[in-house]
Amino acid sequence: MHLELIFPFKKIFLSSNKFYNSIKKIVGFNPSNLEFYRIALIHKSASLITNDGSFINNERLEYLGDAILDAIIAEYLFKKFPNENEGFLTKSRSKIVNGEHLSHLTEKTNINKLIISNIKVKNSNYTRNLYEDVFEAFIGAVFLDKGYEKTKKFIIKKIIQKHIDINQLAATDTNYKSQLIEWAQRDKKAINFDTNKDETKIKAYKTVFVSHIMIEDKIFGEGFGSSKKEAEQNAAKVTLQNISV
Amino acid sequence: MHLELIFPFKKIFLSSNKFYNSIKKIVGFNPSNLEFYRIALIHKSASLITNDGSFINNERLEYLGDAILDAIIAEYLFKKFPNENEGFLTKSRSKIVNGEHLSHLTEKTNINKLIISNIKVKNSNYTRNLYEDVFEAFIGAVFLDKGYEKTKKFIIKKIIQKHIDINQLAATDTNYKSQLIEWAQRDKKAINFDTNKDETKIKAYKTVFVSHIMIEDKIFGEGFGSSKKEAEQNAAKVTLQNISV
Repeated sequence: MHLELIFPFKKIFLSSNKFYNSIKKIVGFNPSNLEFYRIALIHKSASLITNDGSFINNERLEYLGDAILDAIIAEYLFKKFPNENEGFLTKSRSKIVNGEHLSHLTEKTNINKLIISNIKVKNSNYTRNLYEDVFEAFIGAVFLDKGYEKTKKFIIKKIIQKHIDINQLAATDTNYKSQLIEWAQRDKKAINFDTNKDETKIKAYKTVFVSHIMIEDKIFGEGFGSSKKEAEQNAAKVTLQNISV
Repeated sequence: MHLELIFPFKKIFLSSNKFYNSIKKIVGFNPSNLEFYRIALIHKSASLITNDGSFINNERLEYLGDAILDAIIAEYLFKKFPNENEGFLTKSRSKIVNGEHLSHLTEKTNINKLIISNIKVKNSNYTRNLYEDVFEAFIGAVFLDKGYEKTKKFIIKKIIQKHIDINQLAATDTNYKSQLIEWAQRDKKAINFDTNKDETKIKAYKTVFVSHIMIEDKIFGEGFGSSKKEAEQNAAKVTLQNISV
C-alpha cells in the first residue's frame, strides 16, 4: 500500500528528496523504503485515514520498535559486560530504554524535527511521551527497512557511540566505592576493604561475600553480596552514610 | 572460555555426541557452539563455579533470550496481522510469552529433559519457573550460536508452526460475536448487528463506532470502539450478559 495513494502529502510532508536526505543523515545509510520512516513519524493525532476507516500512524511501529530496541540493547550489554550478572544487565538496559532517556535521544538525533502531530496544546509531559513513542517507532522503521543486523549497527554507531556514555551510565549507581576512596584521599584517611566469603551464609547454590570497611582501623561499614564487588559496594554505601559524606 | 576447563562434565552432562544430537533435533539445524546450549540448561542451583568465585548458569542467557524472543514474536505478529492495532498485537504476544505458556513449550519441545538442576524439593510452581527460564535461556543460546534470522526461523518452524495455533490464540478473547451468533442459530433467534460511526462522538483524531445488537427487533446490547469490529465485540459482550448465555 502506497501512502501517496491515501493522502496528499505535499502539505504536511517534506518532499521525497529532502526527506530522504534527512533520514539518511540520521541513520547513516541509504534508506530503501521511505514509507516506513514516514509512518514512524506520524503521531496518532495526525493519523491518515484509509477508505475503510482504519488509521495509519506510528502506533504499530512503536510496538515493533520497542521490542527490537530492547533486544538490541540486551545483546549489546550482554556482550559488552561478559562478567556482569543479569541484574546488572537489566538495570543498565532500563537506564537506556526508559522514556525520559529515549525522549532525549529523539532530540539529540534531530528525529523530533520530522515529527508530524496535530496536537495544539503542548506540555512537557506530552512532548516526552511523543518523543519516546517516535523514537521506538523510528527503530521499528529502520528494522523493517533493513533488518536486525543493520538496525543494530545504526543503534551502536549513531546512537550509543555518539550519544550515550555506557560505562558512566552503567556505573551510575555502583560508584559508592570510588566515592569513598576519593573522600579518603581528600581527607588523608587510611581506608581498607576486608572482603571474604561469608562461610556462615554459604548455601547450597549461593556463595555470600561479606565486606568490612575500616577507616583508621575501625569498622565503619559492613555489606553483603553475591560477588566481592557487590559486597564492597554495599559496604561502601553504608560507610558513606555512617561518615555522612 | 571453555566450560570443559572449569568443571568435569562427565558426571552430569550427556556426552558431546548425544548432546549434539539432542540439540540438533530440537532446533532443526546443526548447532555450531554447544557451550551456549550447555549453559542455557544449567539452573542456578547447579551453577558451575569458576576460580575467581563467579557463577556460570543460565541467568544471563535468560535475560538475553527473553528480549530476543519478545522481538521475534513482535515481528512475527506485526507481519502476520497487518490490519490489527498495537493493542491486539501486544495482547497476542503476551499470550505467547507468558510464563505458563513458555513452560508448556519447554515440555513440548523436550528441552525439559536436558535441564540440569540440583533442587530436590520440586513443586509445580518451581517447575513452571524453571521451565520458563530455561526456555528463554535456550532462545538466548540459539541466538548467540546463529544470530537473529536463524533464531526466528527456529521459533517459527519448530515452535509456532508445531506447537501454537496462532489464529485461535489471537482470537481467544474476541469471540463474543461468534458466541452470540452460535447461540442465536442454536435457539433460532433473528439477530442483527447495526454498527455505524457515532457522529456524536467523533473527535479530531478519533472515529468512534457504535454497535447495537437486536434480537427479534429489540436492542439487547450497545458497544463502542475505535473500529467496527471492536464496537461489535463490545456490544456482543454486553448482549451475552443481558441474555445470560
